[in-house]
Amino acid sequence: MDTSVFSKHIESADIVITDSFWKEKLELVRKEVIPYQYEALHDRIEGADKSYSVENFIKAGKIAEKIRNGEKIRVYPTDKWCYDEGNSHPDSFHGWVFQDSDVYKWLEAVGFSLINYPDKDLENKADAIIDIVCDAQLENGYLDTLFIINDRDAVFTNLKDWHELYCFGHLAEAAVAYYKATGKTKLLDTACRFADLICDTFGENKIKGYPGHEIAEMALVKLYEITNNERYLDTARFFIDERGKKPYYYDTILGKETVYDNYHYNQAHIQPKYQSEAVGHAVRGVYLYSGMADIAKYCKDDELYNACLKLCDNIINKKMYITGGIGATVDGEAFSFDYDLPNDLAYSETCASIGLIFFLRRMLEISPDAVFGDTVERALYNTVLSGMAVDGKSFFYVNPLEVLPEASRKDSRKRHIKPVRQKWFGCACCPPNLARLISSVGEYAFAENEDTVFVHQYIGSLLKTKNAEIEIVSDYLDSGEVTLKITPQKEFTLALRIPLWCKEYCFTETFEEKNGYAYFKIKQSCEIKASYSLYVRMIKCSNKVRSNLDKVAITRGPFVYCAEEVDNGKELQMLKISKMPDFDICDDILYANAFREKESKKLYGEWAESEYVPVRIKLIPYYKWANRGENEMSVYIRI
Amino acid sequence: MDTSVFSKHIESADIVITDSFWKEKLELVRKEVIPYQYEALHDRIEGADKSYSVENFIKAGKIAEKIRNGEKIRVYPTDKWCYDEGNSHPDSFHGWVFQDSDVYKWLEAVGFSLINYPDKDLENKADAIIDIVCDAQLENGYLDTLFIINDRDAVFTNLKDWHELYCFGHLAEAAVAYYKATGKTKLLDTACRFADLICDTFGENKIKGYPGHEIAEMALVKLYEITNNERYLDTARFFIDERGKKPYYYDTILGKETVYDNYHYNQAHIQPKYQSEAVGHAVRGVYLYSGMADIAKYCKDDELYNACLKLCDNIINKKMYITGGIGATVDGEAFSFDYDLPNDLAYSETCASIGLIFFLRRMLEISPDAVFGDTVERALYNTVLSGMAVDGKSFFYVNPLEVLPEASRKDSRKRHIKPVRQKWFGCACCPPNLARLISSVGEYAFAENEDTVFVHQYIGSLLKTKNAEIEIVSDYLDSGEVTLKITPQKEFTLALRIPLWCKEYCFTETFEEKNGYAYFKIKQSCEIKASYSLYVRMIKCSNKVRSNLDKVAITRGPFVYCAEEVDNGKELQMLKISKMPDFDICDDILYANAFREKESKKLYGEWAESEYVPVRIKLIPYYKWANRGENEMSVYIRI
Repeated sequence: MDTSVFSKHIESADIVITDSFWKEKLELVRKEVIPYQYEALHDRIEGADKSYSVENFIKAGKIAEKIRNGEKIRVYPTDKWCYDEGNSHPDSFHGWVFQDSDVYKWLEAVGFSLINYPDKDLENKADAIIDIVCDAQLENGYLDTLFIINDRDAVFTNLKDWHELYCFGHLAEAAVAYYKATGKTKLLDTACRFADLICDTFGENKIKGYPGHEIAEMALVKLYEITNNERYLDTARFFIDERGKKPYYYDTILGKETVYDNYHYNQAHIQPKYQSEAVGHAVRGVYLYSGMADIAKYCKDDELYNACLKLCDNIINKKMYITGGIGATVDGEAFSFDYDLPNDLAYSETCASIGLIFFLRRMLEISPDAVFGDTVERALYNTVLSGMAVDGKSFFYVNPLEVLPEASRKDSRKRHIKPVRQKWFGCACCPPNLARLISSVGEYAFAENEDTVFVHQYIGSLLKTKNAEIEIVSDYLDSGEVTLKITPQKEFTLALRIPLWCKEYCFTETFEEKNGYAYFKIKQSCEIKASYSLYVRMIKCSNKVRSNLDKVAITRGPFVYCAEEVDNGKELQMLKISKMPDFDICDDILYANAFREKESKKLYGEWAESEYVPVRIKLIPYYKWANRGENEMSVYIRI
Repeated sequence: MDTSVFSKHIESADIVITDSFWKEKLELVRKEVIPYQYEALHDRIEGADKSYSVENFIKAGKIAEKIRNGEKIRVYPTDKWCYDEGNSHPDSFHGWVFQDSDVYKWLEAVGFSLINYPDKDLENKADAIIDIVCDAQLENGYLDTLFIINDRDAVFTNLKDWHELYCFGHLAEAAVAYYKATGKTKLLDTACRFADLICDTFGENKIKGYPGHEIAEMALVKLYEITNNERYLDTARFFIDERGKKPYYYDTILGKETVYDNYHYNQAHIQPKYQSEAVGHAVRGVYLYSGMADIAKYCKDDELYNACLKLCDNIINKKMYITGGIGATVDGEAFSFDYDLPNDLAYSETCASIGLIFFLRRMLEISPDAVFGDTVERALYNTVLSGMAVDGKSFFYVNPLEVLPEASRKDSRKRHIKPVRQKWFGCACCPPNLARLISSVGEYAFAENEDTVFVHQYIGSLLKTKNAEIEIVSDYLDSGEVTLKITPQKEFTLALRIPLWCKEYCFTETFEEKNGYAYFKIKQSCEIKASYSLYVRMIKCSNKVRSNLDKVAITRGPFVYCAEEVDNGKELQMLKISKMPDFDICDDILYANAFREKESKKLYGEWAESEYVPVRIKLIPYYKWANRGENEMSVYIRI
């Protein structure tokens, strides 16, 4: 690792997003998603699955009070994955074992939103929820409503399946964001008290466990960054080092030997430093890798960093959809094997792409490389944004690349492929995760160190950095033009990512290129114009991917395009794009010459060249699909 | 229906198979499969799942004895689908609810085998098992070991999920075959006593139920054919007419309303006479349709016959693999929606293709049409035969059209796709079903009525019919030449199916063609030579089938071909067959000009024409795949 290029993302507080594309998304999150989720957390959305999250905190608060008063409290069974109305006592915990995290993710999104748009009313609402959350904390710092309500003796007894350390992670991330937004320390103090208990509980000569669903690793690092308390860093490192050691912790604690394969699911099959293939539950994977990158950086751990590089390489070059989606299989919401990327069975969870962005931001902070920046862009503009309807009112968990509504209805193998977005999920991880990512999108776009400012994503903004004030006027998505108006505090270097999709680009100033970044020496106030030629590309997938043979995907700039039935008729598989397609672009809609194969009704017949009718196909950015009712969709088109 | 063309298959007793191809299969069944299954039924195969079937009959026999003696008998729960060692009391029933049927299917195969090759030792073994079976029958005629052993009060209380009427069906079919083979009536009497109980129990003004897993319908017709007892025909008809009537019988008996969709699974969603789309569990479907065709014929029911025609059309033209496989989805082992025929996810159960042959034999007996005969041939020479290894020692349940062993191991969606055949299944429906079909293959090849003999399949044989003695010397599979030496008893008509795959054919005698059959007036002893040109065909699938776009399947005569890794290297998807492939045939192996696309390692890159290396590919008949170790296989090849 070259520590001299280490950087740190620029804080949301130092970024004003002015970009029309992103401002609209931020507004959507602020005006639609956050208020909607507030109602959802309070179980006030008609027709949607209940969340129970706030209710659980209120119940837990009462129990915490009783404990303080030494009152006797009932015990409910804690051996279930999902505690719902039908099966539970009304006084017991309701929802999934990780239900608390929905409240935390909402609070984190609110934190970022308040930085962007101060809003007293929203802050009051958040403060009220924070009071409810903090009231539920036990005196020893423990805070997980499932175990506080149902069974205090079961605390930390099954790290593999229960999500106490996962919920802690989201609590810590929310606390940090809310503290940065408001300067209020109440939630942060609560998070630190829980963190202290965790540091007291886990480690050498203590319980040698680690989270079943990772996130605590990177969350502890965030607390360390705010508090400088090295115990948090140490415990994060412990969780990573201990993971995968034999005999397996989970086996020793559960008293039975699990087969090796089962540990792939939560990346505990071998120690992270020896991992080179992304396996198991995709969200857990990228959350772990994010923590690994954090520790690699803070502890200057080359072994861990090399593992991160290998995992990146494996994901980006063998396990990622062109849309930046990862986790190809619904079974275990997991990475499949290399090159297994079926379009119509894809899982490609929104949260997994969000987690991939978390991981790659950290990799960029260790070493700026356009491959990482490019992949963040790919995930952000495609799978992440497709997770939300254009009106911000419905959401996708799963982001397929090919959809036939009849198959989703009739084929159980495709039951996870929803042809229309859903309002709210009982397991609501994706919508609040989307809200917090979008609200803090600037933090994934810009970074700096002592003498360099990095622009990883071209999002129109005003940046206040240690090195300079920079105004970025971006027409990147429409024309590929970006203007940077720079007022330096001192001499520094500006590093601009050159998009890998762009073969023709120019800058108005001289630069040096390294790992796909253009480096400019800035000595005085100046303006740099970057022009990236936004031609339409026909992309071919490796022929090791069996589902994409003799097909292409169309991209323009960061956007992957797709065909929808509403524009191109049913049976999209009959379309063949021309090899010289003569593209037209109108706003963000693409038109191209293509052919429609005449329907062959006969199931089996002698081979003959097909007959085609010339057609002009209409393609829209992938993230905009499924906004005009249920219909067929396909990213890949035959050529 | 034109009753003048009604025919009836020729009995095995009147057929001597001389065909070298089929003789070998019959010998395999006789020498390998039947003895192996005998051991399996007795739980004497090391490393294979236990069958428990004979053990259950012995247990039931002891209970039947106790009942006769008025002794008190223990009750075991009967609410489970599979009763295995781990969960059951040693004295209770073991295995699946339909475990009895394995014994019956074996007895049926033995019956047909004894017709072909009398074998005193085998007959003695069968007689001993028949004694054990008959000892288990209760005095009222009831015979199902699960309920006799576990709970006599649960008899006929859940027709939907339990398989009493299914086991009865296999008992009756075995009894008929064994009676025809040996003239012994013991098993037939037992079957009739059970049939009488069923006729007493179900019908108008009795229990208005019907089988959850169909087969009793066609089995009752078989008993009727032997006994002329019209009650059997009436009850079969009742089962078919009653099915799907509202309110649903299963709902009334189970006391809860099931959603409409659930009844698709066992074709009970609407009355059979209104059914036009093949839905639900594929084996159940074709077993029902077989019974429908029987009743249509015997009761001259045009409404039911029209439903059969529609179901045939739907299966053959929208829901059948080129291999004659049906039931595309593992979920419910069921028909999927029209044109949903994925190669690498196919279920295509061996038993379903066997059932399809049962159905189509009956359709041919109503009205000879080459489409039906052709489909029997397709299923028989491809999916049915692929169910068994060339050495007769291992079996496939599932018959995929594309296999990547890594996917079968790592992708749960493909866990049912086995890259190598299995020895014996706990649920062993396919191997004994194969054994009984192959042992009686002649009955699917030939039929006759008062004045016409139909040759549906060209299997070398000596036929003794009411109209004539016919010696068929068949080189159909190798050269397409068939010679028929005919010694008529009287003037009659000989009808030969003209294979639909054959565009060039000739006969040495004049003929009239109707519905794909060549009709010859035979007045005296003569010899007719038929020549069917066996050229290699490249078959294109309808472009409504998404998995086969820009691909072809190669066929020659009845055989579908496939490429295996052992002959063509890994990554079969990289192969592209030439449009003018210059085929060579050597024995049954095909060689063709093709290209191998150079591997494109880059996951996503700018589209460019691919580079290819010319190769000569080697293809083998599909039924022979997976006989040389685990490897990739593909029926469809890119063109």
